[in-house]
Amino acid sequence: MEKPLAITMGDPAGIGPEIVAKVFRDAPELAHGCFVAGDVATLRRAAQCIAGRGRVALAVAEIDTVSEASMTPPRCIPVLQVTTDRELVALGAVSAVAGRMAAESVVWAADAALRGDIAALVTAPLHKESLAAAGMPYNQFPGHTEMLQHRAALAGGVPDSELPVRMMLANDELRTVLVSIHVSLRQAIDAVTRAQVLQTLLITDRALAAMLGRRPRIAVAGLNPHAGEGGLFGTEEIDAIVPAIEAARAQGLDVSGPVAPDTVFMRARARPGGRGEFDVVVAMYHDQGLIPVKYLGVDKGVNVTLGLPLVRTSPDHGTAFDIAGTATADAASLMQAIRMARDLAASPPQPATAG
Amino acid sequence: MEKPLAITMGDPAGIGPEIVAKVFRDAPELAHGCFVAGDVATLRRAAQCIAGRGRVALAVAEIDTVSEASMTPPRCIPVLQVTTDRELVALGAVSAVAGRMAAESVVWAADAALRGDIAALVTAPLHKESLAAAGMPYNQFPGHTEMLQHRAALAGGVPDSELPVRMMLANDELRTVLVSIHVSLRQAIDAVTRAQVLQTLLITDRALAAMLGRRPRIAVAGLNPHAGEGGLFGTEEIDAIVPAIEAARAQGLDVSGPVAPDTVFMRARARPGGRGEFDVVVAMYHDQGLIPVKYLGVDKGVNVTLGLPLVRTSPDHGTAFDIAGTATADAASLMQAIRMARDLAASPPQPATAG
Repeated sequence: MEKPLAITMGDPAGIGPEIVAKVFRDAPELAHGCFVAGDVATLRRAAQCIAGRGRVALAVAEIDTVSEASMTPPRCIPVLQVTTDRELVALGAVSAVAGRMAAESVVWAADAALRGDIAALVTAPLHKESLAAAGMPYNQFPGHTEMLQHRAALAGGVPDSELPVRMMLANDELRTVLVSIHVSLRQAIDAVTRAQVLQTLLITDRALAAMLGRRPRIAVAGLNPHAGEGGLFGTEEIDAIVPAIEAARAQGLDVSGPVAPDTVFMRARARPGGRGEFDVVVAMYHDQGLIPVKYLGVDKGVNVTLGLPLVRTSPDHGTAFDIAGTATADAASLMQAIRMARDLAASPPQPATAG
Repeated sequence: MEKPLAITMGDPAGIGPEIVAKVFRDAPELAHGCFVAGDVATLRRAAQCIAGRGRVALAVAEIDTVSEASMTPPRCIPVLQVTTDRELVALGAVSAVAGRMAAESVVWAADAALRGDIAALVTAPLHKESLAAAGMPYNQFPGHTEMLQHRAALAGGVPDSELPVRMMLANDELRTVLVSIHVSLRQAIDAVTRAQVLQTLLITDRALAAMLGRRPRIAVAGLNPHAGEGGLFGTEEIDAIVPAIEAARAQGLDVSGPVAPDTVFMRARARPGGRGEFDVVVAMYHDQGLIPVKYLGVDKGVNVTLGLPLVRTSPDHGTAFDIAGTATADAASLMQAIRMARDLAASPPQPATAG
């Protein structure tokens, strides 16, 4: 029997619980074998929210063990109570309680994945300010990624720095892995070193090989316009990117580039019924990779954490406090994240280390 | 009677003459009122190339004045001989002669537009290396834009620096104007100053107002991820972009931002049958603007030079030396450039100056 898949409820003040409930209502086949790691009362409120006031809501079943997940009937939401607080927080507001409930759900699911109790975790969005308000130990983590990295490092008995992670953004037609994420553009340029690019390539190769069942065709975007045009517009390609590509090729990776940033995504883009010229693009900074992934709309974007000994995906949007409780949030990205988590869980990636 | 529109033939060793000939063959209504500024023999070869060996080619008529352009029958290519050289250069090869012929065509068309003899110029691609090989005075210009700027400055009796220009890239669904173009990403960050951003906004407002017949809704992209998130990831938004936006608003411009770079293009994107949230996005550097414009394919992209007292558009691709002479080059982008030139020529922009 397949291992169950945990969906963390996200910040209870945001749209997370609602879109989770929508998955169980609107995509019962996709939801089969999934359960929610979170708070039972919060999910009951979300089920009522999407049903509409006074109408019959989806049933929420509190389960005691993960193995009960696949035994709940379709259109019933199995929830494992993993938060200490059982408070119905105010919707759309930052609070320490909400941050703590969101964080406890993630930590529980990360540890369950690391123990091998679940196949993967799909995380609904949390709110960075609530997380910061939640106090120790949660306020030391800017977001999901760092929390997961820390739990994995703890489980492996190594410092966090020995588990390098990268963010992959993917939709139906494009996958991109980022060398750096939430730093200024100047700092992102400084992060374009041979070591960082090589590490990104090795993590990408390992994860995509597991996902595709074959060696991925990786394209590396340049940093500068026209990939520097031979040093005319910047030298990072010559100093860092080309040496990293050569080192990766020496290890057998299928890597092309550096390719002009303004055409590499177009070339990698998979057309309906076909595939693109590359399976994945390694992007040198946050917006280089995210602009093309988001250009056609965020409703199908999935965020995947690469490099950890667990499978974690998430929708590519935030808590949307402004529409929390209105039942209008779109669950499409979360559904896509669940699909991708299942694909990845079929052959989970191992952590990669830089050569 | 409408003024004619000049299409420069581009580098005669590239695909320029072929795609120009294809416009006259495949889009006679669009081509009506257009003529080619270039070399008659080169266009005859191109017409034969697209017809196929031994088959009857489109007629090429040498005209003596621009007013004859609209008198040639459909599917006949009117060419004004404006190059000194009349050599049939080798296809697909860099040469001084080819560079000189391409440059002379552009200079002639620029001066004709500045005199008011033609409504606009649409430039087929030239090759930077051939241009550099062409010697003085052409080798002092990296490309079209600088050549046009110089001719306009000469005509106006001002230094080139007093005619600031910006590149706009546009397709059916997105327009973007770039603060800087062919410099390294580090230099591009340095160019994000209040003055440069404000000048870009003023040029953009002036040009788009002429194009749309109303004040354009301008979005300004941030430089850093999430537009800096309040200074957390870089301070260029606070130091330069916000002050520029405020100064532009004080002059009555309709400007939003700074908007997170990874969502601003998605928001500006016009869906079929509708329009986007903004008419144009001011992008902080080359790839930020070009990645989304090119993502869906380069065949419809048009490059427009803003800020000059003439209308100039061009297709968003190069000379493609590798396929020159094979008749396989796609003329779609050139056709789109002609359409846009006509729209712009209906109410030509005036040069803008920074406040």
